[in-house]
Formats: sequence, C-alpha cells, structure tokens
Amino acid sequence: MKKILIIGLGLIGGSIALGIKRTHPEHQIIGYDKKDVQNLAKTLGIIDESIPRLEQIQEIDVIILAAPIDVTLEILGQLSQLKLKKDVIITDTGSTKSRVMERAIKVFHDKNVKFIGGHPMAGSHKSGILASDVNLFENAYYVLTEENAELQEILSGLHAKFIILNPEEHDKITGQVSHFPHILASSLVQQSDDYSKEHPLVKNLAAGGFRDMTRIAEADSTMWTAVLLSNPEPILNRIKDFKTQLDEISEKISLKDEKAIKSFFDTGKKIRQGMEIHKGAIPNFYDLFISVPDEKGVILRVLALLQDISITNIKINEENREDIHGQLQISFKTEKDLVRAREIIEFATDFKVA
Amino acid sequence: MKKILIIGLGLIGGSIALGIKRTHPEHQIIGYDKKDVQNLAKTLGIIDESIPRLEQIQEIDVIILAAPIDVTLEILGQLSQLKLKKDVIITDTGSTKSRVMERAIKVFHDKNVKFIGGHPMAGSHKSGILASDVNLFENAYYVLTEENAELQEILSGLHAKFIILNPEEHDKITGQVSHFPHILASSLVQQSDDYSKEHPLVKNLAAGGFRDMTRIAEADSTMWTAVLLSNPEPILNRIKDFKTQLDEISEKISLKDEKAIKSFFDTGKKIRQGMEIHKGAIPNFYDLFISVPDEKGVILRVLALLQDISITNIKINEENREDIHGQLQISFKTEKDLVRAREIIEFATDFKVA
Repeated sequence: MKKILIIGLGLIGGSIALGIKRTHPEHQIIGYDKKDVQNLAKTLGIIDESIPRLEQIQEIDVIILAAPIDVTLEILGQLSQLKLKKDVIITDTGSTKSRVMERAIKVFHDKNVKFIGGHPMAGSHKSGILASDVNLFENAYYVLTEENAELQEILSGLHAKFIILNPEEHDKITGQVSHFPHILASSLVQQSDDYSKEHPLVKNLAAGGFRDMTRIAEADSTMWTAVLLSNPEPILNRIKDFKTQLDEISEKISLKDEKAIKSFFDTGKKIRQGMEIHKGAIPNFYDLFISVPDEKGVILRVLALLQDISITNIKINEENREDIHGQLQISFKTEKDLVRAREIIEFATDFKVA
Repeated sequence: MKKILIIGLGLIGGSIALGIKRTHPEHQIIGYDKKDVQNLAKTLGIIDESIPRLEQIQEIDVIILAAPIDVTLEILGQLSQLKLKKDVIITDTGSTKSRVMERAIKVFHDKNVKFIGGHPMAGSHKSGILASDVNLFENAYYVLTEENAELQEILSGLHAKFIILNPEEHDKITGQVSHFPHILASSLVQQSDDYSKEHPLVKNLAAGGFRDMTRIAEADSTMWTAVLLSNPEPILNRIKDFKTQLDEISEKISLKDEKAIKSFFDTGKKIRQGMEIHKGAIPNFYDLFISVPDEKGVILRVLALLQDISITNIKINEENREDIHGQLQISFKTEKDLVRAREIIEFATDFKVA
C-alpha cells in the first residue's frame, strides 16, 4: 500500500486518481487543491483524503503534480523546502518538459528525490474535477523523461502507453505537432476575420476544409499561453522554418513553375496519406461514401448492417464541401474493414457507394 | 425544350447533367469529351447525345464548360471560332474566375455570346463520370459572375444556392478561405515530415488536431496546381500577410508578453466560435460527448433514441486526442438540438454525458 499525493484536482488529477485505483485500489490517494475542490473530490470518491496545507508529507511515497505549468514550477520550490520521504518519486503532467525539468533539477539537486517529468497526452475541452474520467488516458501516449517501473506500475490503471523521451526532444516534437499548429490555426482564423471586413462573404464561403483546419483555434487560451511561454525556442524555430517554406512556394507561384507546384502538392499528399497519426500506427483514412435517401431510420439501417465492423466515425454530409460528397461518410480502421463494409452495403441495399 | 451542351463529362459535368434533368427532363443534353467517356455517359443515361467533334453547334442554347481550367481556357478560344446561336449562354465551372473571364471577354468581344462565369462549390475526392451524383450540389453555393434567370432556371434541379460575385472578389475570397489553407496544410505536412527525419517520434505523437489541420493536404494535386497558377496575386497576398501575422506572434513569444499571447489566443477562439462556416449560417460546434460501455449495439441504441434530431456527425473516439475525450462524440446543428439530445440520453440511459 502506497501513499500517493495528487496536487491539483482538476480533470487530469481526478482522472489519474481514478485510473490508479482501477488497478491499485490498495493505494491511498491524498488530494491537495482549494478546499471546496478537495471536499468535492472526497465526496465523489475520487480521493481518499485531503491535506489542508502542503506540509507534513514525509510519509508520501509518490507525489503527482497535476497543476498548470506555472503553478507546478512554484510548487516544486515549495516541496524542496519540506521534509520528504527518502527516495520519494515526484512527477508532473505538464504539456512542456524542459522548463519543469530545469526547475526540478535545480531545487532537488541535493535532495533524495526521484523526479520524473511526465506528460499524459490526453485531455478534453472540459475541465475540472467533475469531468474526471477513468478512461481519459485509455490508449493515449504518456511521455516520461525516464523509465521507472514503480511509477509505471502505479499508473498502470490509466491504460496509457508509456513512451520515454528526454525533455528537449519532447518539447521539440510537441512544438512541431501540437504547439505550432495551434498558432497556425489561430492565425488563419484571425487573418480570415480581418479579410472579411473588406470581403464579407469570406464567412459564408468558408468550406469544410477551412473548418477542419481551424478547429483547434477554440482551445483553452490560458493553457496555450502557458505552453507558448514555456517552450519558446522550438516554437520560434518552427515559425521561422515555416516562413521559409512559404517563401519557397511563393517563388514557385511567382515564377509560374507548374512542375514545381505540382511536385509540392504531390509530396504533401503522399506524406499525408502515409502518415501514421494514430497510436498503434493505424492510418485513419479508410472512408466509405454512401448516398442514402433522405428518410428516417436510414442511418440506423446502415449501422445495423455494419454492426460487426469497427467504425471510427460517421459523418452525415448535408452541406456540400468542395472535397467530399456523398451523404453518409463512414470511416474505418483498416482497408479490410472498408472492403467488407462496402460488400455488405452493396449486397444488402441499393445505396450508391463510393 | 433547350439544347444544352456539356463539355467535360467528369464528376462535375455528369452531376450537372443529372441535376438539370431533375427539374427539366424536357431539355436535351448533349455531351462532349473523349469518345469512350461519351459512350459511357450515354450508356448511363447521363446525357442524351454526344458530338464527335466540337463543331456544328449553332443550335445549342447553353454551353456548360465542365473541364479543368486550362482546358476551359483553350476551348473558349475554339468556341469563339465557331458559328454559335445568337445570344447563346456560355458558362464554366472553374475554381477561379478572373483568368476565365478575361479570356472570355477577349475572345467573345465581338460576338453575340452571353458569357457567365460559374463556380459550383462542391466536389468530391472521387472523380470521373461514374461518380456523378444528382445530389452533388445540394445546398452548395454556386457562384455566378452575374444573375441570369434563364441559366439559374435551367440549373434549378441542382438545388444549389446561387450567389453573385464579380470575378476578382470571388478569387480573393476563395484565395483566403480555400486556396491559401491548402498551401498551409501541405506545408505543415512537409515541414513535419522533414522534422521527423531528425525526430522520428513526430509521426507517433501527431494528435487529432494535427490530423484535422492537414487533411486537405490529400487533395488532388493537378487541380490545385491549376488553381494556384490561375489565382496567383490573391494567394501571394495572403501568404505575405500571413508571414506578417507569424512575425507578430513570434515577437510576442520572444518578449514573453503573456498578456499579448493570451489576447492572441482569446481573439482566435472568439472568432472561430462565432464563425458561420456553413451554408445557411449554421455554426457547427454543438458536440455532445457520451461515455458508453464497450458493448455491441450501444451506438445503435443511442442513435435510435436520437432519431428525431438532426445529427451531423458521430465520432467514435477510441484514440485519445489531446483536446477531446468521451467515447461517442455527436455533433448537432443547433444548441437546441444538443440540449434536447442531452435530455433524452440522460433520461433514457445511465451513460455519462458531457
């Protein structure tokens, strides 16, 4: 039986608590946050106990910091001033790792603390203890800055996939695949809005592709501000590199270089098709398009026929996007599933399939 | 009864033919394309007749050019050399309008031709006559460079929404909401692929947001090359403007200006939330998240409960995206629909809803 202190009882902290209990109900989970949040977490059975102040924690075996990055940085300092158990494990859950590791190394340099940077790559646009979900991290990547069998065993109930990355590498990678794209999306939205002041129909004619590209512009601005502030160099590097890319395609357009422009799009298409974007390296774009009559129950009929096949998405296309047609767009995990589904629909209905 | 000549019997030409016949079966549709395509179109009943060569067309009332832009530009020249019916209507379907209009004005300047630029804003990643669909343009915007009651009546069976825009305005708007985003998506994909050579886990850690942003990078490279070549100025203008945006956010990051960065994300979020991206100005982001047990038939059960409500998308979340959680993600058209759906699910099941 271990004593686990979770500092920060929001969506992440609460979900971690639930996940730990799933495989280790014997561990005692102590929570620390604002008083009313603590009480709520206890009432909901998410934590076993709480502490009124961050002190007297020398019996704690594992401390999990599930707070925003800036709060985490501060609490690391506080913890370093306290009497802690020998070889206590301390870990965090922040979206960037370099700053946190720097701070941890500094404050704990002469202490018997095992600090492991952590980043469970899952979340929600919801927040708060009430949104806690034992399945939040199911199949998600959980980055750790080093292996630790004890910590990974404690967190086994999260059903996450642990991946070991040094802090700088983590921040560069997330800078490219997560942080910079958020900047891109928000910039495109603002550019279009600006343009719509002189060209009002911009808003009406934005099609599905535009919507897909800008969805992440709705992410939480407080969190993303903290992310940008804590990972400036890789992000600035990606912005600079991207501007170079834009210069290159601009030149090809100015020179009317048809071959080069086609090559640009061909390359992008090929890479994107080959990109393994899911955990488990399952490409995601096995889509079937089914033209269905506009009748009640038609979608249910199609799904009932496909009950034994793993579907990942069903899109009901009523709008007409410039790059999609067909009224029911069903996504499968594998080509095999798609072929089987197509056979079934073509056999059992007269709906047109593409 | 009118004689309508459709030049180019691909997805667009074929679908227009089907649409015309829906409200005007009395019109005669003549097709022109490669011989085997013509024959297929006749066999499929998409056209009534075909012509072996582009000549003897002085009885044609309306000519619709449903060919790629470069082919269209050439055929306009050919048509101007032929004997045509007095006041014949000629229209095209190209993704950009300025170049086509320029050409048409030039070649038809002393002829009795009514040329109207057209751009039906719908499509598919499929192509070819076999993909023709009478519903392709259902509720899609169909841009015309001027009103024309006769043409609009002929095309009424397409069920599209006509919108009148001058060519330059059309090209600027599509440059912003369609052409430039395609460049962005493809550039991001290529940048990430490049980066993954030194940082291999880029491919594994790309999450849902990255996928959304790069989906349109899979668009047809031949078509998009033609688009860029025929709309260079607005596109170059958008690229240049975007680089300025990137410079601005870079500066805020360099200066660690927390307030300014937060304001940047807040602005993007607010605009995106308010953006009316659909036809009919229906915002699209009324999403319900339902945690469902991993049992067969559960999705059918939920959809059966929601049969009377308009659903636009059902996403089955097995992967864990950093910005979404909850296993069934159902999108509704209006907030009212979402609220009603939530009531129903909460009343009739014990599934957790967010």
